[in-house]
Amino acid sequence: MRLAVLGGDGFIGWPTTLHLSARGHEVHIIDNLSRRWIDTELGVQSLTPMDSIQERTRIWHQETGRRIHFHLIDLARDYEVMKRWLADHRPDAVIHFAEQRAAPYSMKSDRHKNYTVNNNVNASHNLLNALVELDLDAHLVHLGTMGVYGYSNVGAAIPEGYLSVGVETLDGETVSQDILYPANPGSIYHMTKCLDQLLFQFYAKNDGVRITDLHQGIVWGTHTDETRVHLQLINRFDYDGDYGTVLNRFLIQAAIGHPLTVHGTGGQTRAFIHIQDSVRCIELALMNPPKRGDKVKIFNQMTETHRVRDLARIVSELTGAQVAHLPNPRKEAVENDLVVRNDQFLALGLQPITLQDGLLSEVIDVARKYAYRVDRSRIPAMSAWTKDIAPTLERDPEGKRLKSVS
Amino acid sequence: MRLAVLGGDGFIGWPTTLHLSARGHEVHIIDNLSRRWIDTELGVQSLTPMDSIQERTRIWHQETGRRIHFHLIDLARDYEVMKRWLADHRPDAVIHFAEQRAAPYSMKSDRHKNYTVNNNVNASHNLLNALVELDLDAHLVHLGTMGVYGYSNVGAAIPEGYLSVGVETLDGETVSQDILYPANPGSIYHMTKCLDQLLFQFYAKNDGVRITDLHQGIVWGTHTDETRVHLQLINRFDYDGDYGTVLNRFLIQAAIGHPLTVHGTGGQTRAFIHIQDSVRCIELALMNPPKRGDKVKIFNQMTETHRVRDLARIVSELTGAQVAHLPNPRKEAVENDLVVRNDQFLALGLQPITLQDGLLSEVIDVARKYAYRVDRSRIPAMSAWTKDIAPTLERDPEGKRLKSVS
Repeated sequence: MRLAVLGGDGFIGWPTTLHLSARGHEVHIIDNLSRRWIDTELGVQSLTPMDSIQERTRIWHQETGRRIHFHLIDLARDYEVMKRWLADHRPDAVIHFAEQRAAPYSMKSDRHKNYTVNNNVNASHNLLNALVELDLDAHLVHLGTMGVYGYSNVGAAIPEGYLSVGVETLDGETVSQDILYPANPGSIYHMTKCLDQLLFQFYAKNDGVRITDLHQGIVWGTHTDETRVHLQLINRFDYDGDYGTVLNRFLIQAAIGHPLTVHGTGGQTRAFIHIQDSVRCIELALMNPPKRGDKVKIFNQMTETHRVRDLARIVSELTGAQVAHLPNPRKEAVENDLVVRNDQFLALGLQPITLQDGLLSEVIDVARKYAYRVDRSRIPAMSAWTKDIAPTLERDPEGKRLKSVS
Repeated sequence: MRLAVLGGDGFIGWPTTLHLSARGHEVHIIDNLSRRWIDTELGVQSLTPMDSIQERTRIWHQETGRRIHFHLIDLARDYEVMKRWLADHRPDAVIHFAEQRAAPYSMKSDRHKNYTVNNNVNASHNLLNALVELDLDAHLVHLGTMGVYGYSNVGAAIPEGYLSVGVETLDGETVSQDILYPANPGSIYHMTKCLDQLLFQFYAKNDGVRITDLHQGIVWGTHTDETRVHLQLINRFDYDGDYGTVLNRFLIQAAIGHPLTVHGTGGQTRAFIHIQDSVRCIELALMNPPKRGDKVKIFNQMTETHRVRDLARIVSELTGAQVAHLPNPRKEAVENDLVVRNDQFLALGLQPITLQDGLLSEVIDVARKYAYRVDRSRIPAMSAWTKDIAPTLERDPEGKRLKSVS
């Protein structure tokens, strides 16, 4: 297949690109390299030394003989350029990662809120709009988030995208209806993924666009089979308070002797997936498209759930790291349960990698190898969800004045 | 109160501005005058001769001694300018009409789709973002649409914004939950109002912004008590295929001897409200704000429902006009029922104006008076919902080759 990977230079985009190239597909990365610019803006960098996209694709060709094509296009701003590209290349499928993906970054300031909304909504809408305008029946595979469901203790299992509800009719009867699961986003970033869902629903209904939306859990790990092929193919690995995600952050903190930073009680239950499974799931989704006229196909792309404080305990037991309890910069439920259905990927043959599979140690090894590159002052999560919360957060570059360390 | 009316130069914005100024409020119009630009783009004009906003406000002052302030600001593009304006004036409430509001216009081409999404999402989000950034506890009253509910024959009455549903828990019990009514928009325009709903839900939850969302039916009529004060205060009155709305279009068609254009079977049931009631409802909503921390307060702003072909029959009986059945440019259910709850406005004292109240004739009189300004070639609805539908529409400037005229 000829594939366009939008945002193919990013944390999931890059290993996905390699994985699909290795499977023999013709892969085109379209990226505006905004994630690299945000590194520059924030003054942070990937823990792993990351080459330019041009160099990465050169190494891939050198190692495997396969070509990955790179096109610098800003999907959200350059509609006409993107449309022309699609018209010229007419890909069989488009895999869409081209969104600002950090909840804390999306809450930093009014400028960051506007950027996230503007970039994410326009990227998704421009793409849908162009597919229809060009009458291009490419399968659109989009990376969404488990966060669209919210974490609100309904006491019911999270289905895959659609909720069956009972509605009372005028005749007093109760009829069953399948609805898009009610959105309950916890940040501006998560909200944009809820907006995406409505865009997808409309374009599937009005124009028959074939769309798969992957509601992904929190990704951990850094290597995949393909990023291991050469040192310069290494994936990015974020540890800072904005882009680092909870389990990877714990593993890096453990590697450098920083206390594990648990925000609030750590009673938040979240869904997780290893990055190797993430790229496998995307391939499975790609191979199993909806039919034209179908409603949006939604998968929960996750393999297990854990409470944050339990993750901290696991990492602490593995490494001897201390656990520090910090104020929570987020406005969210202190504790929540979470049961998630992921039957569809299991039925398609996914064999989940779990935390028990020894890969936690691999991540710690990577972190130790590059520990010299860590700027400890960038570890605290300092982006507050409201102006009330901001003053409760303490700047603590060395993790020395943490309130309670156990 | 000090009020900002965003989009205060438009079809509902202008009579609302006058109504609230007449009630003694200090009213500031913020508008980018985009609706006038779209007239220019499409080469159409209001049936009623409409003065500049500067002239309109001058006449209002001359007639009543009251000042309406006008500020030319593009809410969607000029975030910083809008924020500074809000910081300087700190209004008690903001009434938000500043969105592209025609479904057919939003479906004309890819450029129009992008414009509608970009303008509407950014206008709403910029406003919310600035209110939070400035810690400005102004009540936000937004004009939404009944179209967020869709017209899909569920056989249940449409509640006011929230739907009570039964959800099965892990224990096998069914618990009742109030959810935002599942969005089912029928056009890009309607979809943007669904996106607005999610923006509002998030900002009410995360930041305690006080928001009222008015899900309005199709507005008919043109005069209000205040627009009648002086000929130069007259409201705009659209009859073209993009911006004209069904009942007003029938009345104008009748006035100029054009057949009444029913698209499809005319089996579509829609909700209606007279423009005088519309401005009264907005005032009622303004006087009854939600409390800080409340969820978004949603009203159904409509007073009656009618099937399109029944409206055509009423107007035909009143005027002797013929009825023409045309292909439908929209992708929608051929027939639908619609029962809508509007208990909240009735409880606040709204006494609805209905089609029986003789105001149909007033509209016909206005239309006859300005009939010489009608460009008959702009009457057909030519914006198709999909590329498949476009060739089925016939250009028929004079209404002479209409397929079936009864």
